[in-house]
Amino acid sequence: MAVQIDAGRFEETFEEYSAIGATERGGLHRLTLTDADRDVRDLFVEDLEKLDLDVRIDELGNIFGRREGTDPDAAPVLIGSHLDSQPYGGRFDGQLGVLCALETLRAFEDADLETERPVEIVNWTNEEGSRFEHAMLGSAVWAGVTDLEEALALTDDEGTTVREALERTGYDGDAACEAGDVHSYLELHIEQGPYLEADGISVGVVEGSYGMAWLEATISGETDHAGPTPMHSRSDAMAAAADAINRIHSLPNRLSDDSVATVGRMAVGPGSINVIPDTVTFTIDVRSYDDEIVAEAIENVEFEIDTACRRWDTEYDLEQLWRISHTEFSETVRSAGLAGAEAAGVSYREIVSGAGHDANYVNRVTDAGMLFVPSVDGKTHIESELTEWDDAVAGAKAYAATVEELANE
Amino acid sequence: MAVQIDAGRFEETFEEYSAIGATERGGLHRLTLTDADRDVRDLFVEDLEKLDLDVRIDELGNIFGRREGTDPDAAPVLIGSHLDSQPYGGRFDGQLGVLCALETLRAFEDADLETERPVEIVNWTNEEGSRFEHAMLGSAVWAGVTDLEEALALTDDEGTTVREALERTGYDGDAACEAGDVHSYLELHIEQGPYLEADGISVGVVEGSYGMAWLEATISGETDHAGPTPMHSRSDAMAAAADAINRIHSLPNRLSDDSVATVGRMAVGPGSINVIPDTVTFTIDVRSYDDEIVAEAIENVEFEIDTACRRWDTEYDLEQLWRISHTEFSETVRSAGLAGAEAAGVSYREIVSGAGHDANYVNRVTDAGMLFVPSVDGKTHIESELTEWDDAVAGAKAYAATVEELANE
Repeated sequence: MAVQIDAGRFEETFEEYSAIGATERGGLHRLTLTDADRDVRDLFVEDLEKLDLDVRIDELGNIFGRREGTDPDAAPVLIGSHLDSQPYGGRFDGQLGVLCALETLRAFEDADLETERPVEIVNWTNEEGSRFEHAMLGSAVWAGVTDLEEALALTDDEGTTVREALERTGYDGDAACEAGDVHSYLELHIEQGPYLEADGISVGVVEGSYGMAWLEATISGETDHAGPTPMHSRSDAMAAAADAINRIHSLPNRLSDDSVATVGRMAVGPGSINVIPDTVTFTIDVRSYDDEIVAEAIENVEFEIDTACRRWDTEYDLEQLWRISHTEFSETVRSAGLAGAEAAGVSYREIVSGAGHDANYVNRVTDAGMLFVPSVDGKTHIESELTEWDDAVAGAKAYAATVEELANE
Repeated sequence: MAVQIDAGRFEETFEEYSAIGATERGGLHRLTLTDADRDVRDLFVEDLEKLDLDVRIDELGNIFGRREGTDPDAAPVLIGSHLDSQPYGGRFDGQLGVLCALETLRAFEDADLETERPVEIVNWTNEEGSRFEHAMLGSAVWAGVTDLEEALALTDDEGTTVREALERTGYDGDAACEAGDVHSYLELHIEQGPYLEADGISVGVVEGSYGMAWLEATISGETDHAGPTPMHSRSDAMAAAADAINRIHSLPNRLSDDSVATVGRMAVGPGSINVIPDTVTFTIDVRSYDDEIVAEAIENVEFEIDTACRRWDTEYDLEQLWRISHTEFSETVRSAGLAGAEAAGVSYREIVSGAGHDANYVNRVTDAGMLFVPSVDGKTHIESELTEWDDAVAGAKAYAATVEELANE
């Protein structure tokens, strides 16, 4: 029989944390290392100290709280997520995972539960990448993917560096920002997609996450007067771009069930109402769990751009900005997740993540895994982002049971 | 036999004027009422004074030079164009028309030619609308289309008003900026399209100019995460916009030989590489000589946007920013143009203009018309804009002969 969480306390704590950086429309505006983020960090540290955890802050402001196990030499189980939010984002993204981990440790204390392994809770710095443009920064440096000095030198829109923001908020810690010996990592997060809700399932045990590529296309034509230049003598970069983008949006249909394609950004030059554009630049984000499909998507994107450019007498350049293979989470953690959900008596299924999370970076240096809870209408990064509270509680139950599993493995 | 222009002098003068505001790549960067524009205006006034013309500057900086006729009570023939240029534009757009008018008056002096009517040369202020966003400003106010105070209050990107720019350059004149009694207006301009060159013809006698509409579409969807949101649950404003724009570019094929459609400007919100856009705004410029076709184009643009929005589960708003009916130039001036081209012994044909010119506004208050000379490859508003010099000379010959026709009518 799994450890019992206190659903009432969990909800009260969620409301208390959600008040810090709350927006008028029920969302959260708590960008990394701003005053609101400092305030929620202070509350978090206070809550960890109330649990007599050994609190440490590392050089990148990642906050850890350690609960010892019966075997002092055993590698710890790491649990948590992030407390920073998107600009005018929702209350569940990240925060719910940190508070599930907190509730788990509180439940362990309530039950005087001893685990063989130590359990460490973590709040990662700058997961969102909204203020400092490097998503999952804290876990990236911790996992050795990104260099510490490079991370500290990143600047926000106003030129403030991460280092300055850490100093200003008092979260410039002394602990080394590096993985060390960790047994496993478990993160609960909102799904941010529609599948769990559609199936009426409370908990998703995450198999892994999508591979993805970020591309940037630049189409070059010739600028000219929008009046006296007949259609047949134009080299209109916008005509080619619209043609290519129209076809790019239909690509996923032909590739796989799970693939997605997004054109999120575009710039048009010279950008005048009565001038034929000579330059259109746009980005393409393509994803699938299958790396082969991502590769095929990239080929198809280039084919469509090339074809559109031939059709509209223009030229193009296609650059790959970023590429990441799909992640398969640890078999150990997935098994524990399935067992935990079963022990907690909640509905569950396996699922794949379309987004990247801190768990992806952590998975590079230890056994990592995730649990998902449903997102209403699949919506995220908006103020009305919602997980039904029954699902959040089901997630916390499965989470606590899974942590117990891992900590005694 | 028509009056003889001096082709050598005409070319020398063209080179002299082209040096003011010249760009490294052989173009012209001479925005309205900048230092370069002031310098070329000073040279122009000097040249008018050398011809003993009665020079006057009006309240909007339009420069006039009057050569008296034999009948002091006859209404004058007005001739000219504009000396301002596009940013990094070409040397022929506008300037060639002013210098054809100047060469015409010089040729009249050489021949001691007396005309019944006075002839007035004019340089219109801010034809391009690049610095102050109101194209053909000088002629619009002169023709009573735009209010003088409104014109003087227009600002450039740095907040400088037209009034301040006029004062700074010394072109804040005293003469009333209003049409008065004018017999007719003749403007020579580069075609800015490919037809004359394609037909191997030196001079186009302009029948009129296109009707046009400027529209702005805003497509609204829902922003969401580019990863975990499956294609079928998206409301992607960019997908709808690209679909609509792709079809808008093919509309002219189905409407008429002469119609054109241009999407010159686009803004995407929130504009992030991994976020599904919820707002895409873009402009549509549609033109045809046939006002019915412009009306049909507007209907078709809306049909395509509406259809794309149904297809991609988004909504739209379509606003008409500006609409102008086609212009038919004066029968009197067209006849004189045909007679002038014939008398000058140059190749000519009738043609329609896809662009608006000062002549369009002038045509509202008097008999106006235009002559075109060929644009190499139909290109304009670029530094390499070119009219073969033989064609420029043929144009000047036809122009001088036509002015002579009009001034003795």
